[in-house]
Amino acid sequence: MGKLTHGGDWAGYEQKYGKPPLDFSSNVSPLGLPEGVRQAVIRSLQDAERYPDPLCRQLRRAIAGAEGISPLWCLCGNGSADLIYRAVLAARPRRALVTAPTFGEYEAALTLVSCRTERYRLRKEDGFLLQEDFLEAITPEIDMVFLCEPNNPTGRTSPRKLLLDVLARCREAGSLLVVDECFGSFLDDPGQHTLSGQLKKFPHLLILKAFTKLYAMAGLRLGYCLCGDTAFLDAMRTAGQPWAVSGAAQAAGTAALAETEYAQAVRALTVRERPWLAGELEHLGCQVIPGEANYLLFAQEKPILEPLRQRGILLRGCGNYQGLDGTWYRTAVRGREDNRRLIAALEDIL
Amino acid sequence: MGKLTHGGDWAGYEQKYGKPPLDFSSNVSPLGLPEGVRQAVIRSLQDAERYPDPLCRQLRRAIAGAEGISPLWCLCGNGSADLIYRAVLAARPRRALVTAPTFGEYEAALTLVSCRTERYRLRKEDGFLLQEDFLEAITPEIDMVFLCEPNNPTGRTSPRKLLLDVLARCREAGSLLVVDECFGSFLDDPGQHTLSGQLKKFPHLLILKAFTKLYAMAGLRLGYCLCGDTAFLDAMRTAGQPWAVSGAAQAAGTAALAETEYAQAVRALTVRERPWLAGELEHLGCQVIPGEANYLLFAQEKPILEPLRQRGILLRGCGNYQGLDGTWYRTAVRGREDNRRLIAALEDIL
Repeated sequence: MGKLTHGGDWAGYEQKYGKPPLDFSSNVSPLGLPEGVRQAVIRSLQDAERYPDPLCRQLRRAIAGAEGISPLWCLCGNGSADLIYRAVLAARPRRALVTAPTFGEYEAALTLVSCRTERYRLRKEDGFLLQEDFLEAITPEIDMVFLCEPNNPTGRTSPRKLLLDVLARCREAGSLLVVDECFGSFLDDPGQHTLSGQLKKFPHLLILKAFTKLYAMAGLRLGYCLCGDTAFLDAMRTAGQPWAVSGAAQAAGTAALAETEYAQAVRALTVRERPWLAGELEHLGCQVIPGEANYLLFAQEKPILEPLRQRGILLRGCGNYQGLDGTWYRTAVRGREDNRRLIAALEDIL
Repeated sequence: MGKLTHGGDWAGYEQKYGKPPLDFSSNVSPLGLPEGVRQAVIRSLQDAERYPDPLCRQLRRAIAGAEGISPLWCLCGNGSADLIYRAVLAARPRRALVTAPTFGEYEAALTLVSCRTERYRLRKEDGFLLQEDFLEAITPEIDMVFLCEPNNPTGRTSPRKLLLDVLARCREAGSLLVVDECFGSFLDDPGQHTLSGQLKKFPHLLILKAFTKLYAMAGLRLGYCLCGDTAFLDAMRTAGQPWAVSGAAQAAGTAALAETEYAQAVRALTVRERPWLAGELEHLGCQVIPGEANYLLFAQEKPILEPLRQRGILLRGCGNYQGLDGTWYRTAVRGREDNRRLIAALEDIL
């Protein structure tokens, strides 16, 4: 079996060291699965013998209620990664535009359909922020554009004015714009940044969202997407198997939407811990990018990945991101005690 | 959202009638989720915040032990349907051969890659059994062949001699042979029929297997495939998202493999109930195909689908299978009490 290129390889760690690591390499809520979600999954096991509802009807109604849109504008997937592949298989782009660095699965999915991918380089000198010249890269030859907001692994968001210009430019160019808001719920004010209010005006806008990160249910797999073009959502639905979303995930998602206090607590923790962690990393001589989500990108000349691993801590080395090299690392923002352990281990190493 | 074309639409039934149906339209063990599997899933929720192991290492070791093969020859998927799409996306066939009638997802997946699909017609006059002339249909232009053993919806299996000839013919023609054994564990003697002993000799053989049916875990989604061509398995692994198999499903699968008594009980029930149900259906004037799995295909001139639905029973109408018309139905083989309810309702209708 091939090499793993993502974070979160706790299984490989456990196989080698015989105990679980402290995992800063994947970015999920450190508060654990909400109890209401846990109970909902256990209840769902009563019906485990049933195939899951391929249309996720109950869950989509709940999402539609929370998002203030029609259930017809919503499609659920086996994690948002499933929806990335379905979007690409449904759209069949010949040429696409992605940023660099960004989440690697966009390009992996595009490669699967032999799409030629252009990369727009986010520059360190610009703090990895999207610039106005991105608009010029959206030519009529571009069939599909991916934007990650906030971006993974930088944690940066683009100014609203620029996002709206990108939307308009994509309409002119006839490009499908996929905006991945999977980490949007960790922003200080998610409602201010989401483009979901633009769905009606721009049917070529597809927004990706995840349950896995905010509700600490990465192991259960659930994501969804929103789009005003119902024919395109239907094409995505048939661009893969009908039963992608398990019954357990559907039950978990419906229950998660009721966990508003939990979600607020996660945001409060992120708002409190992110500046603390950034400050400590800077204090240790790391160059920290001012991310706005539940993770931070930073540069450090000395090798720290393996020494941290030996101390029981997993970090995400960013050497395999297009546009970054091996001196860049991404760390999750966890609770204070865990964050202290990371900083103490780094002090020890550096 | 589009029309559902499969069985098992309990969700649509519940939405309309406000109560669960007695479901004969999907073919899973009627004995419910094994308690050991239920407990394993609940335990797995302790780690719900972790991304699932993309390589399913522990589960693949358990499967390899049970199958007597190397873990390198095994790939797990989000149900076997996930693996059908991955196989097609990895193989990229231009021309493929499927039987008719058979499981519809083969052709759905082939359509996704714009593959031209030839259909080999299984004839009612032959009891829907595969004939020798299938070999002639495997020409060098055919890149991929799908066979379902036992076939869905007929429940018939092909003679071993013919299967081995198909394997040899596919090697000559340079065709990948996918043998779907998802219902193989319901046969009276699964070990006698599986082609898993041929994997070493024939690296162009891909065998699909499911957990969902035998262990009543269709809602949890888990399937796997076996192949001696590890490069092809790796291509399948990257022909989709890395985290397809949830942590809950991985835990469930590992636990299910220990449920040998449960599996024997399901087989014993199937062996006992299938002839009883077939006899009663014939007694009611239905033409029953002598299936060998946990379901039966039968013909009935009078409409029975909607009348059964009104009596709280779901059956699988087979009018949308290529090669069958609306007079054909597929029923699951359930426990005696449920089977009696189906027969009583049919007596009432006919």
